[in-house]
Amino acid sequence: MSKLLIEGATVVTLNRDNAVYSPGDIILEDERLVYVGPSQRRLAWQPDRVISGQGKIALPGFINTHTHAAMTLFRSYADDLALKPWLEEKIWPLETKLTPEAVYWGTMLACLEMLEAGVTAFADMYFYSEETVRAVAESGLRADVAPGLIGVAPQAEQALVQAVDFVKRIQASAGGRIRARLGPHAPYTCPPSYLKEVVSAARELGCGIHIHLAETKREVEELKAQTGHSPVELLHEILGEVGPVPVLAAHCVHLSNEDVRLLAEDGVGVAHNPGSNLKLASGLAPLADLITAGVKVGLGTDGAASNNNLDVLEEMRLATLLAKLATGDPTAVPAATALRLATLSGAEALGLGEEIGSLEAGKQADVILLNEEQAHLFPRHDVISRIVYAARSADVDTVIVAGEVLLENGRPVKLDREKILAEAQRQAEKLLG
Amino acid sequence: MSKLLIEGATVVTLNRDNAVYSPGDIILEDERLVYVGPSQRRLAWQPDRVISGQGKIALPGFINTHTHAAMTLFRSYADDLALKPWLEEKIWPLETKLTPEAVYWGTMLACLEMLEAGVTAFADMYFYSEETVRAVAESGLRADVAPGLIGVAPQAEQALVQAVDFVKRIQASAGGRIRARLGPHAPYTCPPSYLKEVVSAARELGCGIHIHLAETKREVEELKAQTGHSPVELLHEILGEVGPVPVLAAHCVHLSNEDVRLLAEDGVGVAHNPGSNLKLASGLAPLADLITAGVKVGLGTDGAASNNNLDVLEEMRLATLLAKLATGDPTAVPAATALRLATLSGAEALGLGEEIGSLEAGKQADVILLNEEQAHLFPRHDVISRIVYAARSADVDTVIVAGEVLLENGRPVKLDREKILAEAQRQAEKLLG
Repeated sequence: MSKLLIEGATVVTLNRDNAVYSPGDIILEDERLVYVGPSQRRLAWQPDRVISGQGKIALPGFINTHTHAAMTLFRSYADDLALKPWLEEKIWPLETKLTPEAVYWGTMLACLEMLEAGVTAFADMYFYSEETVRAVAESGLRADVAPGLIGVAPQAEQALVQAVDFVKRIQASAGGRIRARLGPHAPYTCPPSYLKEVVSAARELGCGIHIHLAETKREVEELKAQTGHSPVELLHEILGEVGPVPVLAAHCVHLSNEDVRLLAEDGVGVAHNPGSNLKLASGLAPLADLITAGVKVGLGTDGAASNNNLDVLEEMRLATLLAKLATGDPTAVPAATALRLATLSGAEALGLGEEIGSLEAGKQADVILLNEEQAHLFPRHDVISRIVYAARSADVDTVIVAGEVLLENGRPVKLDREKILAEAQRQAEKLLG
Repeated sequence: MSKLLIEGATVVTLNRDNAVYSPGDIILEDERLVYVGPSQRRLAWQPDRVISGQGKIALPGFINTHTHAAMTLFRSYADDLALKPWLEEKIWPLETKLTPEAVYWGTMLACLEMLEAGVTAFADMYFYSEETVRAVAESGLRADVAPGLIGVAPQAEQALVQAVDFVKRIQASAGGRIRARLGPHAPYTCPPSYLKEVVSAARELGCGIHIHLAETKREVEELKAQTGHSPVELLHEILGEVGPVPVLAAHCVHLSNEDVRLLAEDGVGVAHNPGSNLKLASGLAPLADLITAGVKVGLGTDGAASNNNLDVLEEMRLATLLAKLATGDPTAVPAATALRLATLSGAEALGLGEEIGSLEAGKQADVILLNEEQAHLFPRHDVISRIVYAARSADVDTVIVAGEVLLENGRPVKLDREKILAEAQRQAEKLLG
């Protein structure tokens, strides 16, 4: 058993009391937290390793509840376009040329970027999910991986069979850092019958689904015209018929009051993607209403083709600022609530609220340290406000996932930074060539 | 004469043709740019110093057109409050305790923060402006400093006399890196007669004014009820009576179409502060309309009490993202336009468009280098899109103002970082104590 001590940090726990210990200590035994509390003067035992928390803020790692990791390869390739030409003329033609190797290196680039930004866990939906898993396994990060399923595609049934097989293999593999779901893309690409088939398969497997829901106004209007239901209502109907299945729903921008109520009732985890929703001019999600209704809301970056980075801290700031705009109320979604979205509430949206998302004894040791010796973090007034309104993801100094130190002094410990940048560049050039 | 060569960078000029040279060279002679263009194979002369541009993106420095620098001391002291209790219970009581020393160290902290974020010039409005000037002079940055004037305050006339004297002294001092304006706070704190007096004084001095304008809906409604005019119309009336004076107007959130037309007609420079406008729930400025009307728009961070950092790159991203939301059009204010707001258009808003804001031979050498060897900036697709949508201010590696290298490898060359952080902390504690 290996014991690690983080000593004398400002520890922001996100526990039930929102306790902050300054100075505070964190003790890790292998992959678990065994002590989080006020600094102890004298230890009765010898740690295997001590990390100084002096001048550092300790937090649970940030959680990215919605991304398409390998799309880093398309970052800044096509921007400032309307959705239709962006997808049809730019993104889809490149995606048809994707190879397993490209997905592997694109995901590696995403893992490196997220690691450096203090993201310790993410939920992914994309293609060649085996390659995603391979990259995540090597990176040391935690992930929830869903093979994307397009119901209107010619090979939809075959894709579902393969996805079921993928989930079974992940469920059987040891570890637990990587979990799997089915990824029906969206109600507008998965007809109700197919969606029901996928939800039934998930119920049988005992896994969840990851889906895009109510992202654009047009999508909601078209589905209503076709089925009489909003996307959330359709999902609710299907869950009612099949039985409860954990759902992670990305976007949820255009919602009625009834939709918000149903999301809470069905225990749906919502991945709120403020940056992507702005960039594609999708609209403002009713974040304050979702929180008030008790919906489990996490933050997502979406893919780097529509953001264009994987910076959860940036999404956290956008989430609180946009909630103030949407409500006209500067007190809406205050700093402590925003920080919860990026951590514990995100964990709950993924169904991992008992395991990660806060610094509490017994939980998995997913810890980040921010270096607070920064001009933009001085003077030392409220620590939560400084994190949410002033910090930069570049302040992330140390990242620990499941007890393993993955980033030190802002540099990756085991990922080969130069190789990943070079290979990602090579893959991007191959896709364009 | 000292010659400096920046060799082999990706040079984003912001010149009339939006030329990008990759690889490109930049040559500085003392404080001026003498060459900006494609890399030259062989030089017929010997530079005094060479800075490698390998893996770097060269840009004109970012320009912060509206801040209250010393308010860094109040960063994260009071947040998530409605405007009235925030001002009356939190900010104003602290401001009455401000000392010249506090303003000096608060401004020093702001200069350090802006320097590290690639901001080379800023427009300030605050109290104890001599101290602001002293800090700016030591920092090496460029600034436009306005003593704030509150017309409804008991000492308003005396303050104007002192401000006029301040402007005369700055105008007489050598250098030119620091300029002065008069800072009538806002129409709701400066009655029309006082505002006219200030504008007349500025006209006599040959300087500009820096004012808050149309920040909140309530302010516009109240002024209309009192005077029959919107804030912009009132300003237009006064300029019509007194004669043209350069105006820098911060916020300009709540504008009629006629207001937008008048701002263009009067040549008013607008400081757009998207972060502050969101945080205080002031609203969305009609940025796309202002640009279309030909208004000179720059970006501002506002003070660190309402933002809470001085990060122009973050404001640039917010500006383009919010314009897409406001118009419902994902093509609104594209990346190249957003970058212009943060640089050349900001310079024009300050009346410095001939001197700074782009990398062109003959202009002042205000240059920044971003380190592009970053996971979040790979692969190397469109460089402008990567800067606007994916970069972080922490990517700023080198900052040069008026030919002087102020930041190297992300560390200040002449500012004493540790001392500034410690003194700012001490001043903040004294204000609270």
